[in-house]
Parts: sequence; C-alpha cells; structure tokens
Amino acid sequence: MSRALLVISHGSRREASNTEVKTLTDKLAAFTKDRFDFIEAAFLELAEPSIPAGIKTCVDKGATQITIIPYFLAAGRHVAEDIPEIVDAARPDYTDIEITIAPHIGQSDFMAEFVANTAISSVK
Amino acid sequence: MSRALLVISHGSRREASNTEVKTLTDKLAAFTKDRFDFIEAAFLELAEPSIPAGIKTCVDKGATQITIIPYFLAAGRHVAEDIPEIVDAARPDYTDIEITIAPHIGQSDFMAEFVANTAISSVK
Repeated sequence: MSRALLVISHGSRREASNTEVKTLTDKLAAFTKDRFDFIEAAFLELAEPSIPAGIKTCVDKGATQITIIPYFLAAGRHVAEDIPEIVDAARPDYTDIEITIAPHIGQSDFMAEFVANTAISSVK
Repeated sequence: MSRALLVISHGSRREASNTEVKTLTDKLAAFTKDRFDFIEAAFLELAEPSIPAGIKTCVDKGATQITIIPYFLAAGRHVAEDIPEIVDAARPDYTDIEITIAPHIGQSDFMAEFVANTAISSVK
C-alpha cells in the first residue's frame, strides 16, 4: 500500500506564487514521512499540473490511497464545490484507489496556534 | 506598554467567511497572551472593520506597539502593495505608536509543519 498526499492550491498567473506552493510541498515531506509515502502538488486553475493530472501522477507512482488537502484559507466556492466536483469526476477512472478530501487548511484545528507562532516569531 | 496583534484578512461578501476569521482571532489569544495584550481583526476590503479602523481600535485600547499579520497565503499585490500602503497612510496619525507588519502567513517558517499536521490529523 502506498499513500500519497496531494496538495491543491488555487494557482496563479504569477509563476513565483506557484513556485512557493511547490517549495512548500517539498518541505512537507520531512513532516509527513511516517504517514505519506510521497507528496504531489496540483492547481485548481491557472497553473499546471491540474487536479486530474495530479491524481494521475499519484496513481502512476503507485498510490493506493490519496489524501487531498486544499491549500485554501476560506470555504468559498472553490473549496465547497469546485474541488469536490473535479475529484468526483476523476473517481470512476480509479475505482480501486481510496481518494479522500481533507478539510481546507483554514478549517484546521492547528490554525490558531500556527498563526500565533508566526506572529510571535516575527517580533522576537 | 501595551502590545496589540492585528490580524488582517482579505474580507469576503460571504459573512460566514468573515466570521471564520473573527473566530480564529478569538482563539489566538490563548496562544499569544505572553506576547500580545490583545488581538483585533480587520479586513482589506468587503468587510468591516477596515485596516485604518482596526489600527484606531488598537490605539484606542491603549496599544503602544501594533504587530500586523496578513492572513494571506500568497505574496500577491494585496500583501506586497495594498496592505503596506494603507498602513503607511495611517502612520502619520500615530507617530508615537510602533507599527510593524509581519510576513504574511504563507511565508511562515511554520507552514510546512502546520499543513503536515493538518493532513495527518485528517486521516487518523
């Protein structure tokens, strides 16, 4: 069994912004190696790879479980509708793969502590 | 000396989204009480209070130091230009107050660990 984490962000016309997300994805591995075998990034729009392409990459690399985490702060239409619809459209192609969508990061129980640590470290 | 933390988010036409940010701000107090005396929220646009109103509230409550943290993932125009410009325009009104802008949360050194913890807790 191989477990993938797929980080989905909005995507930007600014390539620097997309690179920031890919850099974050690379850093994630150090913190997730006990739970996920590898990590991929995908974008809702304006950048590549797309979400279906990201799912396909995970499967091609041997994933049998894919956890999708939306890198979004607010539960707007993208989080509530667009991402689930795109993922659901891909499911029939991978009926033997377990694909789950985690809460978007804005809803994380760890957010308050994270923002606090970020604010405190900025003034030390 | 009284130290305030002012959390700035984009603001949304969806009131639920603005409420999410205010709820987060309330939760922050538990993690920041050793460093900040109180916490306020303000919005760049589409919601109240505005950034100048948020700064004024901090000062009215006795803040002599205000740390502004942009609750934004990407270093787009809002983070790079709009927020600094609005804050700079307010500075002349508060020449005896130390106002600093922390890095936006997307740039935080703690982001990778935070996203990792969020993803891992979602699959446990």
